[in-house]
Amino acid sequence: MTRFRLDLGYDGAAFHGWAAQTGLRTVQGELETWIGRVLRLETPPTLTCAGRTDAGVHARGQVAHLDLETNDPQQTAETLTRRLRRALPEDLAVFGVSIAPAGFDARFAAIWRRYAYRLTDGVLDPLHRLTTASVRGNLDVARLNAAGEALLGLHDFGAFCRAREGATTIRELQHLWAQHLPDGRIEIGVRADAFCHSMVRSLVGGLVDVGTGRRDASWLAGLVDTNTRCSDVTVMPARGLILEEVGYPHDDQLSSRVTAAKAKRELTQP
Amino acid sequence: MTRFRLDLGYDGAAFHGWAAQTGLRTVQGELETWIGRVLRLETPPTLTCAGRTDAGVHARGQVAHLDLETNDPQQTAETLTRRLRRALPEDLAVFGVSIAPAGFDARFAAIWRRYAYRLTDGVLDPLHRLTTASVRGNLDVARLNAAGEALLGLHDFGAFCRAREGATTIRELQHLWAQHLPDGRIEIGVRADAFCHSMVRSLVGGLVDVGTGRRDASWLAGLVDTNTRCSDVTVMPARGLILEEVGYPHDDQLSSRVTAAKAKRELTQP
Repeated sequence: MTRFRLDLGYDGAAFHGWAAQTGLRTVQGELETWIGRVLRLETPPTLTCAGRTDAGVHARGQVAHLDLETNDPQQTAETLTRRLRRALPEDLAVFGVSIAPAGFDARFAAIWRRYAYRLTDGVLDPLHRLTTASVRGNLDVARLNAAGEALLGLHDFGAFCRAREGATTIRELQHLWAQHLPDGRIEIGVRADAFCHSMVRSLVGGLVDVGTGRRDASWLAGLVDTNTRCSDVTVMPARGLILEEVGYPHDDQLSSRVTAAKAKRELTQP
Repeated sequence: MTRFRLDLGYDGAAFHGWAAQTGLRTVQGELETWIGRVLRLETPPTLTCAGRTDAGVHARGQVAHLDLETNDPQQTAETLTRRLRRALPEDLAVFGVSIAPAGFDARFAAIWRRYAYRLTDGVLDPLHRLTTASVRGNLDVARLNAAGEALLGLHDFGAFCRAREGATTIRELQHLWAQHLPDGRIEIGVRADAFCHSMVRSLVGGLVDVGTGRRDASWLAGLVDTNTRCSDVTVMPARGLILEEVGYPHDDQLSSRVTAAKAKRELTQP
């Protein structure tokens, strides 16, 4: 078996998220079907991804892996790249297929995920509407950034996560920064070791409420390290969110990273 | 009567171009209907625009004017802005409504129109697919730019225009430049005093054929100043084209510009 790495992107609007679900169009389901078809496999392969995006959430830096039996891995990678480019629907693209380095695991080897959320407090440019959310009120970006500082570091983000039994909501938020784009929109970039369910959209919802003056920074800071979901936090629409990039360690550290991540998961998800 | 200036944008995909046509969804038709509705006018107003875009072509810098009877022009501008923002469908937006300066005419006062065409010779990012065309082969941007120099200046662009009887195809191409965007796509910016029908998409089609090596620069240069349409020139897909900006002279030169443009039109369109 050879492990392959796929770098891919999608417009999330017409997908019920990443994870395969019977009877629903999902990114995983669509990709597994097409890979099985273009390689003429009897059974479609199983894909594992770095960030299981929710319904409507986009990606341009998603990473996935799959294992295939092949005598000529390089040839298989090239065939898969070429055929998927022709076969896939327009809202799903595989930018590249490569032979994964030893020890690679798209999910457990990842050391960080970076998302971007784009929004506007002005009139929404129709050409940006697939990937931009509108907010009411005037957003003060400096105020938003000041409030965001309280979120940085290793914290329990339970107030911003949809609960899953036995799963930890402790994450390390490594980077959080809002800025105006040249076209006037506002982009909030967020990076963490990992994110729990709906976490980015809830963080942005909290920040927007502070940035527009509806809430104080102290309200947001007070939610950090509480471990139950806070119903006061707005979950922003999926359309503004893009998984931009996934970070991996150097090749010689992949295996140890995977071992550590799996061990941590067993500790926190009994 | 007070003249108002509208700055607007649209995703052209679901419109049959700018110009109103009975039974078809057009930008002009949709806007006139909505303006009539939100201002509760008995008869919808008539709009005049700077650049009559074709079916499928986008705009983010389109300018139009309309004349309305009103006792309080400032109030009318504000009401129109606010109500259109709520009423318009998502693929059409009015960024601003203002009282036009004396002598203003969206069409005849314009001194230049600037378009951008975006394309990729790689895998198309699904999140860019509304506004980006795919081309086969590898595009050499330097070769494309070198070939473009022959097009600059005052020329007969008849080889690149769909003919209209009695209409001149002489235009002044003021600017033409291709560059890589940070995301890897290629953007070709084109500015002229005005464009004839399908001209930008034909110019880009000719340039792409040179940039990919299918044609020589001398072929393209040989088409300049011939005055009949050349069937060898590919008309690129509408989806890659955006009307980005329209230029007007200083307010005190608006009237003379309008007079000159109308006189020129009478000379060339008997």
